Amino acid sequence: MANLLIAHGGGPTSVINASLYGVITEAKKYPEIEKVYGAVGGSSGMLTENFIDLKEISDEEILKLLKTPASALGTSRFPLYEKEYERILEVFEKYNIKWLLFNGGNGSMDTCGKIYEIAKDKGIGVVGIPKTIDNDIFTTDHAPGYGSAARFIAQTVKEIGEDVKSLPIHVSVVEAMGRNAGWITAASALARKKEGDAPHLIYLPERPFNEEEFLEDVQKLHEKYGGVVVAVSEGLKNDKGEPVAPPIFRTERAIYTGDVGTHLATLVVKNLGIKARSEKPGIAGRASIMNQSPVDVNEAVEAGKVALQSVLEGKTGVMVGVKRISTDPYQCETILIPIKEVMMGEKIMPDEFINERGNDVTDEFVKWARPLIGGELTDFADFNLGVRKEKI
Amino acid sequence: MANLLIAHGGGPTSVINASLYGVITEAKKYPEIEKVYGAVGGSSGMLTENFIDLKEISDEEILKLLKTPASALGTSRFPLYEKEYERILEVFEKYNIKWLLFNGGNGSMDTCGKIYEIAKDKGIGVVGIPKTIDNDIFTTDHAPGYGSAARFIAQTVKEIGEDVKSLPIHVSVVEAMGRNAGWITAASALARKKEGDAPHLIYLPERPFNEEEFLEDVQKLHEKYGGVVVAVSEGLKNDKGEPVAPPIFRTERAIYTGDVGTHLATLVVKNLGIKARSEKPGIAGRASIMNQSPVDVNEAVEAGKVALQSVLEGKTGVMVGVKRISTDPYQCETILIPIKEVMMGEKIMPDEFINERGNDVTDEFVKWARPLIGGELTDFADFNLGVRKEKI
Repeated sequence: MANLLIAHGGGPTSVINASLYGVITEAKKYPEIEKVYGAVGGSSGMLTENFIDLKEISDEEILKLLKTPASALGTSRFPLYEKEYERILEVFEKYNIKWLLFNGGNGSMDTCGKIYEIAKDKGIGVVGIPKTIDNDIFTTDHAPGYGSAARFIAQTVKEIGEDVKSLPIHVSVVEAMGRNAGWITAASALARKKEGDAPHLIYLPERPFNEEEFLEDVQKLHEKYGGVVVAVSEGLKNDKGEPVAPPIFRTERAIYTGDVGTHLATLVVKNLGIKARSEKPGIAGRASIMNQSPVDVNEAVEAGKVALQSVLEGKTGVMVGVKRISTDPYQCETILIPIKEVMMGEKIMPDEFINERGNDVTDEFVKWARPLIGGELTDFADFNLGVRKEKI
Repeated sequence: MANLLIAHGGGPTSVINASLYGVITEAKKYPEIEKVYGAVGGSSGMLTENFIDLKEISDEEILKLLKTPASALGTSRFPLYEKEYERILEVFEKYNIKWLLFNGGNGSMDTCGKIYEIAKDKGIGVVGIPKTIDNDIFTTDHAPGYGSAARFIAQTVKEIGEDVKSLPIHVSVVEAMGRNAGWITAASALARKKEGDAPHLIYLPERPFNEEEFLEDVQKLHEKYGGVVVAVSEGLKNDKGEPVAPPIFRTERAIYTGDVGTHLATLVVKNLGIKARSEKPGIAGRASIMNQSPVDVNEAVEAGKVALQSVLEGKTGVMVGVKRISTDPYQCETILIPIKEVMMGEKIMPDEFINERGNDVTDEFVKWARPLIGGELTDFADFNLGVRKEKI
């Protein structure tokens, strides 16, 4: 008899609790696991021995995890200091923890890999469960959390597109999360059903932003469609690699830049004289339960279950990943990837997913991403009114 | 045999199409209505004779109206010039229009009232259908569109609250729509289930913003809870009645101010040194189909039906309104209000709905608003972790 510990790391997703659900429900099947500890507040909870026993929580509460955003255990963004790893080993011994599941993104997989290195001689198994809205985890086709963030932005841009079309007097710039990788912003393309549908322009951090071309494109599209919807990644950079939005002010620790969506909208008003506004759902985009992708929820649960099974089978130093077998019909299999490989990089959008002008994604991306949002978006009534030009 | 015309005016809601559904399905029951014209693009469509025959549209497409945001007919923000009213009478004669239903907010009811005045001697009936996310229409308890905007902000703030609580390292300022009236922002209070739940502070345009008290409150709440969620109305003003957010630039037509959410977050970082960010769902908040309030949808459909029945019965110069009979259990009845009375003002939050410090709403407001969002919000798993202070 020994105990299992599960911890969350980094910014939450709308399905990280679904992976937790998978771990807990699966763990209950194995009598060799005495306690299923949850570290409260991620790695901090491991250091401060702030644990809760997840087997003690009612089935009713556990079931709610499937529809609960954020992290029910609490999470943290702080990396561990070198000497803190030794402390973690002490805690593991004190609590008779033989198995660790660490559920997080790139930063957490790094922590996970380091714990594995120091814990492997003690017979402690360590398995990573991927989690990211940004889809920037290396070596896996995609990771739980992305499909729901993608569905949220697609649904939201589709709805905003209807609004802007029905009242064609402005440009709306929708800012999506993702500092270094444009996967979420790119998924706004899934809002489209026919030519002319929003989003009309998509800007990703993988390509330097060209202000002149942007204004040229907005002008043309405004003439063509009246209302224009632009999707932009919060991490958009210029050709010097600097944020496109100007800095607002500096503190000792950081430079605060303005919102890129607001900045682009301001460019449009100032240079083209066209009314423009911006929308920034921000963290609402990673916490939306109403827009969870059912495929994403299922894959998140599955990742939790497989992680639990794997660590019990003695697999260690690995992360549960997804390998795509086929896109149409959508078919994936769960694989185990050495964490060392995961730690090698950050996955950004490949060239073949971005168009030449850098203002849109390719059909190839849309085909790749479509199954991840878990079914069609709401089909709206369309009276085919044509483009309205009056009184713009 | 004569024809009916329906037009939309002003910014859309997520249920204005539900009222259209009510009108069309009801109109089909009356053989004396030959055609049900929809004015494409609101009043502009009336002037340019841009009509579609809504009886020709398939039942399947009409049904989709219940789940379609924005305006399926197209809408417009432009008021009519005086001489254009005469033009409208010509168009009515040419198309044998005997009944007009105008679906909009305060501006549209003004237009509606003016058309009524000039059309009344011609035997043309005019009935208004209220629509607003802002809930600022005078004389009616509330109006279709508000309940869904309220549900959206409550659900979104609840989700953001979970996120901020699980990663307690910052303040999130959520900006809601509403320039002069704080009804939408106030509805964020419906996110709360127990003490300490988000939103922790609510700022409305009905009260001048006090920066010093705001910073004091944020500091205290941050010490108490770690993560703090602030809901703020886009129209927040200082004690001089000016927008709180500083102007970014001016054009000939308007002054563009920054986003108030961003401004408040910046105040927190600069003055308190606490990490803060802002979210601005913007028009996503009035276009969200996933967050429609079922009560709101039903009331919107009903308003359309009653408007149609009333105009056929010869009632004219009136708007369909809602009178509340009881709050618990929730019971309302549909009434007809002379448009002249509607035109008399804009409804802002009354004093008894705002707390003394001007940083929250009262229980009275919450009781009043609760039934409008149509049922409880998703119940999230709660492991009662307590307040985490480590490494903030």
